[in-house]
Amino acid sequence: MLEPALQAARDQREKSQAHLFELIRIPSVSALPEHDQDCRRAADWIVRRLRGAGMDVELVDVPGPGHRHPVISAEWLGAGAGATTLAIYGHYDVQPPDPLEEWQSPPFEPTVRDGFVYARGADDNKGQVMCGIRAAELALATGGPPVNLRFLIEGEEEVGGPSLPEFVKREAARLRTDYLLIADGQFTAPGLPDLLTGLRGLLYTEVEAVGAAADLHSGIYGGVAPNPLNTLAHAISALKGRDGRVTVPGFYDAVVPPDERELADWRRLPVTEGDLKQSLGVTALEGEAEFSPFERRWARPTLDVHGILGGFQGEGPKTVIPARAKAKISMRLVPEQDPDRIFDTFAEYIDALSTPGVRLSARKLSSARAVRTGTDHPGVEAAARAFEAAYGARPVFVREGGSIPVTVDFQEALRTHLLVTGFGLPGDALHSPNEKYSLDQYFRGIEMVLHLMENLRDAPGA
Amino acid sequence: MLEPALQAARDQREKSQAHLFELIRIPSVSALPEHDQDCRRAADWIVRRLRGAGMDVELVDVPGPGHRHPVISAEWLGAGAGATTLAIYGHYDVQPPDPLEEWQSPPFEPTVRDGFVYARGADDNKGQVMCGIRAAELALATGGPPVNLRFLIEGEEEVGGPSLPEFVKREAARLRTDYLLIADGQFTAPGLPDLLTGLRGLLYTEVEAVGAAADLHSGIYGGVAPNPLNTLAHAISALKGRDGRVTVPGFYDAVVPPDERELADWRRLPVTEGDLKQSLGVTALEGEAEFSPFERRWARPTLDVHGILGGFQGEGPKTVIPARAKAKISMRLVPEQDPDRIFDTFAEYIDALSTPGVRLSARKLSSARAVRTGTDHPGVEAAARAFEAAYGARPVFVREGGSIPVTVDFQEALRTHLLVTGFGLPGDALHSPNEKYSLDQYFRGIEMVLHLMENLRDAPGA
Repeated sequence: MLEPALQAARDQREKSQAHLFELIRIPSVSALPEHDQDCRRAADWIVRRLRGAGMDVELVDVPGPGHRHPVISAEWLGAGAGATTLAIYGHYDVQPPDPLEEWQSPPFEPTVRDGFVYARGADDNKGQVMCGIRAAELALATGGPPVNLRFLIEGEEEVGGPSLPEFVKREAARLRTDYLLIADGQFTAPGLPDLLTGLRGLLYTEVEAVGAAADLHSGIYGGVAPNPLNTLAHAISALKGRDGRVTVPGFYDAVVPPDERELADWRRLPVTEGDLKQSLGVTALEGEAEFSPFERRWARPTLDVHGILGGFQGEGPKTVIPARAKAKISMRLVPEQDPDRIFDTFAEYIDALSTPGVRLSARKLSSARAVRTGTDHPGVEAAARAFEAAYGARPVFVREGGSIPVTVDFQEALRTHLLVTGFGLPGDALHSPNEKYSLDQYFRGIEMVLHLMENLRDAPGA
Repeated sequence: MLEPALQAARDQREKSQAHLFELIRIPSVSALPEHDQDCRRAADWIVRRLRGAGMDVELVDVPGPGHRHPVISAEWLGAGAGATTLAIYGHYDVQPPDPLEEWQSPPFEPTVRDGFVYARGADDNKGQVMCGIRAAELALATGGPPVNLRFLIEGEEEVGGPSLPEFVKREAARLRTDYLLIADGQFTAPGLPDLLTGLRGLLYTEVEAVGAAADLHSGIYGGVAPNPLNTLAHAISALKGRDGRVTVPGFYDAVVPPDERELADWRRLPVTEGDLKQSLGVTALEGEAEFSPFERRWARPTLDVHGILGGFQGEGPKTVIPARAKAKISMRLVPEQDPDRIFDTFAEYIDALSTPGVRLSARKLSSARAVRTGTDHPGVEAAARAFEAAYGARPVFVREGGSIPVTVDFQEALRTHLLVTGFGLPGDALHSPNEKYSLDQYFRGIEMVLHLMENLRDAPGA
């Protein structure tokens, strides 16, 4: 069934383009309430397409506070009960288009220049989710794919909404799937696709320092008044050495190093330390010198302060010793580090860093485990061969330094193998004016998904 | 001539009170432009009184930006060219009365309850400057004092205005004076007057940390991105140990310890370390354990952070690594520490605390030398005996932990002996609703100034 589908994909590129442009024209900005109806229109549009392709589709408004846009859950189990199941994730919501004056063509009017379509959402994520939707349509129209199919498409990705994670947890039993394709990223370089083998987790804390009962004047009381800002500085200084090494007890105990295939790939990535310094505009990188910059960004845990509140924030001099102060401190975590255990140790350590007259305490604001997808499950080779067939190149293994919370939910609730990748290109200007997406990448992306369905036919279940 | 003046002071208490109330009724709030005319009215009122007493009076609008309220400069040189000269400082401006709803009687309607007059400015400083004005009137009306007199009264004390300092520097040659009385404070306890023997100086700096060219995401770049907030924390931590000891090189080199008379007085002040902890609401005091809390507040230099700017200051989690951050850091200085020299060392030290990829630099926002008035010039004994005569108690030597910039200007420009004291009482609620002032303290204050004039008759010139 692959060849007829591939042939149809090639024959119907105009149609694939027209469909993508239809979806792009719906300004489904999830952050802005005035676009709530547009978000629903975008969801309805996708529902119609998937139903038209022959799938069972639900449009689900997950109840609860903060839930604003519906989840699309679709399935086609025509490959049979014993067949492998592939789920495809995507999101139909987009970032706000501001600043409007910087767009060379209207953000919701897809405009083609030099083989790229320029529009908000062209890459992120409409252009990528449409690779999956078109592949499903074409496969189902040409005899059906050799695997069962599922779609999980949300409308709150750009606002960190809770609908999809809650839906997935609630309905995990009936959403069983062996592989889950998340195409919401970019190639490492033109012609060089990638597969994510891991994403760091996050532990975000707020450390509060409480001193005197009220703000004090440093002239009158300086020398006896405990200063929560000084104590916070001492504590922060004690959390991470100048060598980039985090000194929270046991912090590195559970860290699993990347495997040899990953390290080999990272060594040949076409980005030097000099490139990185230049792109950040720094004279030197910080961090653990014994690890390469890629290892430090992707496979090593870190600790950073994001803001320190309290005291005087205005212009000029003011001599207050604040009664209390706070620091926002987060840790990026790597596979096998347990956010709860690390928080407990962190909180104990922080407490011990209190100084006479200033009590420190830590509060957890959020946490997410790191995700490790592995380099060796059968989906990896299936995806690698699909990329090779569609783009002429096997993907490199990379990781993501930040967390994508939904990946954790998928992995924990669905116990599925993740295939995290992307069809965009570096420079697609996600979240910025003049976002763009290569039509060639799009058409090849549809074929990649068709190949993936085929290649997963005989892959063992998760 | 002392006895007739003292007798007149006792006979004319009603008049002294009426005059004070007249001045209080003028709402001379220097901070609020709508009260500019009231400030001038208050100044005019004082000019009339001093002229009426027989003094030569100038009302001087010092030109320049930020100058808003005139300086009153008055002199009476009738004691002769060889006589000692006593100048009296004061200010006719007051703090805004807000919050109005907390006043039990209108802030500019002097109201007597339990021997106290309640009103804005009753203590600070109208009630105190009037001790000097009434004493001058009474002395000049009863044969004249044995010393030459001078008044330097400003209207910008509550707004830190530049008029008086500039006037004093400009006219220093013709403002020659041996002693200068600054009565703008409070007794240490009821029945226990004090004389200030020193005030700490201030060096206020802003330390900037510059990292990458733009804010960075800690997920993507955490582990390689230099974090200016972490670097600032390291630097702050390196500036002062947990023992309260400042580690800027040479910081303590020039520090002059308090003399034995001061230390002896501080040991018998009726405030314990427990009282201090309780009043600050802390479980422990910070600072150098080998020095008493009074020494730490008055005679030891300190370093405090007042605010740290940069990154994310809002609610909840945000994972920015800011491109730059700033810390407001001040040092309280003690006699013989040179603010310029200390700033230079501080700036070098800060520069050396830079970390790979983050450059630290320090900028001076303001500075003022510490003031030391000494315990042994002849004015001290004259004032002590005047207090004893008027209040039945000799003053204790105390210091002020904060700076009063005008004292530095007086001392440097006029090379005069300072007598820094006050006629208020603890609990007079300066700058707060229901400010009050003891009428008994007021009447005795007038007599104290009369005694002081007498006692300074034979004091050697400065």
